[in-house]
Amino acid sequence: MDIRPYISGYVDGEGCFTISFSPRSKLRVGWEVRPSFSASQNADRAEVLLLMREYFRCGSIRPDRSDRTLKYEVRSLGDLRKQVIPHFERFPLLSSKARDFERFAMVCNRVAEGAHLSTSGMREIVGLAVQMNSSGRRRFTAERMVAAMSEVIVSATSNGGST
Amino acid sequence: MDIRPYISGYVDGEGCFTISFSPRSKLRVGWEVRPSFSASQNADRAEVLLLMREYFRCGSIRPDRSDRTLKYEVRSLGDLRKQVIPHFERFPLLSSKARDFERFAMVCNRVAEGAHLSTSGMREIVGLAVQMNSSGRRRFTAERMVAAMSEVIVSATSNGGST
Repeated sequence: MDIRPYISGYVDGEGCFTISFSPRSKLRVGWEVRPSFSASQNADRAEVLLLMREYFRCGSIRPDRSDRTLKYEVRSLGDLRKQVIPHFERFPLLSSKARDFERFAMVCNRVAEGAHLSTSGMREIVGLAVQMNSSGRRRFTAERMVAAMSEVIVSATSNGGST
Repeated sequence: MDIRPYISGYVDGEGCFTISFSPRSKLRVGWEVRPSFSASQNADRAEVLLLMREYFRCGSIRPDRSDRTLKYEVRSLGDLRKQVIPHFERFPLLSSKARDFERFAMVCNRVAEGAHLSTSGMREIVGLAVQMNSSGRRRFTAERMVAAMSEVIVSATSNGGST
């Protein structure tokens, strides 16, 4: 059996493409952006997570916050762009999660180009991220982020742009 | 992309092989056994369920008890044995859910042979079913079922075996 479409099928059910943002006062735009790809499973059924780590040749497996599950996760932008994204371009998701993947891949490409270092680029990234299907744990609204970015820019300007 | 391993991967995450039992006083062994195969998904991501129904050429899609999900389900023993089981024999699950599938297939075969019509056969089926990974909604213990079967047999005997 070809395990490559199998992995795409598994990920269509259990996988997650996430763009998370954290406030970082030391960064010029005020926010850090972190793309990640993950899949969770009960600890007693970790076989597919091990298979994925071996297949993608990157990422790590660790206990999730709830202690009964394990999570396979890839956070490195290089690994995401070199190993993960090309796989799902060749063996696509067949549910509407495919649209989330497309936005995820666009964000990774924009970050690789350095777009997240400018306010306009970060706004574009936030715009893509908010179109993704949230699993419900969204701490910051796009409006609050964009507002906060403006504040940071204003503050940087009033400090003479020293950051 | 070959969708056959894709479906196995999806099912390894989201699918469920279930053997359910219901007390039926009119049946000689006192219990009805119903094998079913199902996969659930949020209603806004039903594509893979539609794909499965088309691929397996059997089964139905209906809202699950919670109104936000849809469930694809195959309950016909003939369809399970002709369409579903051969698929997973050829494109196997790669997690420990594969062991549940093997027991499920054994139960379907035993039911096709009529084993569920005798107390000894039904005991064997219950024995296989309790080895499967429960999703936590087990209404009857094997002990209670076996005890209840004996009662029914006793009752059938005291009635002159009229059922």
